[in-house]
Amino acid sequence: MQVNYWNKEIETADRAEIEAIQLEKLQHIIKAAFKTPFYSRHFKKLGIKSPRDIKTFEDFRKLPLVSKEDLRRGYPNGFLAGENYDDVVRMHSSSGTTGIPTVIYWNREDLEAATDLVARCLTAAGCTRSDIFQNMMSYGLFTGGLGLHYGAERLGMMVIPIGGGNTIRQINTMRDFGTTTLHITPSYLMHLATAIKEHGIALETLSLKRAIVGAEPHTEETRRKLEEIFNIDCYNCYGLSEMNGPGLAFECVYKNGLHIWEDSYILEIIDPATGELLPDGETGEVVVTCLNRRAMPLMRYRTRDLAHVYTDMCQCGRTHRRLSRIKGRTDDMLIINGVNVFPSQIEEVIMKIPEVGTNYMIHLTKSGAIDRLTVKVEIYSKMFSGDPVELDILKDKISEELRASIYIHPRVQLHEPGILPTFEGKGKRVVDERGEF
Amino acid sequence: MQVNYWNKEIETADRAEIEAIQLEKLQHIIKAAFKTPFYSRHFKKLGIKSPRDIKTFEDFRKLPLVSKEDLRRGYPNGFLAGENYDDVVRMHSSSGTTGIPTVIYWNREDLEAATDLVARCLTAAGCTRSDIFQNMMSYGLFTGGLGLHYGAERLGMMVIPIGGGNTIRQINTMRDFGTTTLHITPSYLMHLATAIKEHGIALETLSLKRAIVGAEPHTEETRRKLEEIFNIDCYNCYGLSEMNGPGLAFECVYKNGLHIWEDSYILEIIDPATGELLPDGETGEVVVTCLNRRAMPLMRYRTRDLAHVYTDMCQCGRTHRRLSRIKGRTDDMLIINGVNVFPSQIEEVIMKIPEVGTNYMIHLTKSGAIDRLTVKVEIYSKMFSGDPVELDILKDKISEELRASIYIHPRVQLHEPGILPTFEGKGKRVVDERGEF
Repeated sequence: MQVNYWNKEIETADRAEIEAIQLEKLQHIIKAAFKTPFYSRHFKKLGIKSPRDIKTFEDFRKLPLVSKEDLRRGYPNGFLAGENYDDVVRMHSSSGTTGIPTVIYWNREDLEAATDLVARCLTAAGCTRSDIFQNMMSYGLFTGGLGLHYGAERLGMMVIPIGGGNTIRQINTMRDFGTTTLHITPSYLMHLATAIKEHGIALETLSLKRAIVGAEPHTEETRRKLEEIFNIDCYNCYGLSEMNGPGLAFECVYKNGLHIWEDSYILEIIDPATGELLPDGETGEVVVTCLNRRAMPLMRYRTRDLAHVYTDMCQCGRTHRRLSRIKGRTDDMLIINGVNVFPSQIEEVIMKIPEVGTNYMIHLTKSGAIDRLTVKVEIYSKMFSGDPVELDILKDKISEELRASIYIHPRVQLHEPGILPTFEGKGKRVVDERGEF
Repeated sequence: MQVNYWNKEIETADRAEIEAIQLEKLQHIIKAAFKTPFYSRHFKKLGIKSPRDIKTFEDFRKLPLVSKEDLRRGYPNGFLAGENYDDVVRMHSSSGTTGIPTVIYWNREDLEAATDLVARCLTAAGCTRSDIFQNMMSYGLFTGGLGLHYGAERLGMMVIPIGGGNTIRQINTMRDFGTTTLHITPSYLMHLATAIKEHGIALETLSLKRAIVGAEPHTEETRRKLEEIFNIDCYNCYGLSEMNGPGLAFECVYKNGLHIWEDSYILEIIDPATGELLPDGETGEVVVTCLNRRAMPLMRYRTRDLAHVYTDMCQCGRTHRRLSRIKGRTDDMLIINGVNVFPSQIEEVIMKIPEVGTNYMIHLTKSGAIDRLTVKVEIYSKMFSGDPVELDILKDKISEELRASIYIHPRVQLHEPGILPTFEGKGKRVVDERGEF
């Protein structure tokens, strides 16, 4: 396997070196944090008077955990280091569709560091300057679009800043310019498979090598399916706008976990209920500190994402620890008749069943006091003769396998391909019609 | 008036210095052009064997005029300098809605030069690093969005990469982050005025200082109206993707024509029928040569835009010649009963009439063999008592003033504000229902 590094010295540094970098960078972040309303208030409460009061990781863990609510309460400038935006060159924010948006600010050095990390991520995933990068993610305030754009440009790929949507144009562009690398959501990549077929283009005539699939949780099974359909490598990435977006963690060519760049972030996994630090290997809430952003310091940020850290070393030689796939969110967990279920568990089961196609929906309704779970899946029609008995057997099989995994017996509906809604952006696969609790 | 320069030496260079720079840069462009299929073919035909064969402007004018059709025929790589995209870091293209798209390529130095020019443009329009720049133009393959984004970042403004659409969010963002500078289409700025009012926000509570209005032709009268409504300065800019987008020409704070950056472009005004070079002051087709792009050389490109060059010097001290507003396009000219009419002529007349609001449409139909022109305008309702006679008088006045300008007597329809379609992107104000000719 060909392994390329963007910055070999940093990427293969030993633990002691990484920790030394972290503690040193932390000094600058604490210094900047004194200039923010939020931290100056907390530092006062905690008796922290200078960056030198935070010299060890033990000191560090005295700092408050910060929640999305804290960010929202601080809208717009509670975390801004300074009196004005003079040094700020970029603002990003969440869409704020579920309330007050969360905002981040970058000064020029922050932007530079974030861009460099994305180039590192893309190099880890095998990209080189000869690659043609079609960025099918939306641009704008969403960090994923511009973030990957900047990183790909830094690496020297030819960037095609096409953005999301307009499938026919996407396909023509892939064909005409020999696109090798896509940045795309898994839902849209699924949709693209069908569209390419309908468009009468043989996949072999395209030059696709890999896709960076992001912005949406998806399972290992979905990835394998996508890789098989397109005969490409799909790389998982992990980022959130509060942590500068896409440069946080990325898979290398071994695709066995997401290297989190520990020279630039401090990673903690905590018990979401108690806030207690968990050892590597145990699943808990991902908590991250950004060491590369001084215009808006943010430390010990609770991502609400659940994952664990792998304890073994990666074959690629990188020493930065690897995060598992996100297993769910502390806030998207479904409680169905008292049982905790993550949508990803359902996806994992159904994508393992070969007769099942690339699209599904999860539907929750109420029948009296009882929650009813319906899983709607599309089937590969060519695998069936048309005999209804065959379909009933498949239904039972899916239902049974789901019950074995999530301890709930769902109703299963089978659909022909193309019937369920497809998503050009983030998929919304859970429809919960149970009303307020 | 406060005049700031981005690069004073270049911006105030005398004619001889500018011409020396042009001829020197031209050598590099010719050298790159030898590597393109299009130019290598033409150079052979013309007997041009080396860049040294093009030493003077007279030599230069032997090069072929290039049309959009030539670009399309060369799709995708007829103008690419090189065998592959290895040195290319960016591709942009037109939407191709009216046929094959036109494509441009930038290597890293080209991108760097284009970005620097946009920073120069924004500085000319009074922007400084303390400004808050809300980029309401769409990102993606359109050069205007990313181009201004990069230039504003280079200048050090806080860039809010919000993109187009979602008016409520735009307004909230303007308010919450103290936006001083907008990049927006004139149509959308018109629409924004109404939306801000409806949203119950007093314009005085916003921090707006200026708007860069682009991507759409508009008249001086529209600009004045927008400036009056918002109490800001509106700056006109001129660019086309084939010429690297927005950095081509920009107004300075004197707003009396668009400085075309002659260290980076060679400007010619030609007679569109004969191709003959016209003297400064005469209206003709704008022909431009890009001196800053080596990944895809393009010389003597016919823009199809009609304008003239001002002959007097600008008070700002910049020596680079000024282009007038685009008066029309060689291809959007309407022929109405045999008379040539540009939509901009109609806009110019109606925007001068105080009772007329900010929105209008031009409608063409056929009545037998006769073309019928209908101009639909919105009125300021508060200027009227409700007496129908008043409205009839206004109708006649508009019709009469149009006839005096375009020699056609149009039908005029008056509408209440908010009735005619508004446009969040490029306005489409001409509806031609006369069918094929």
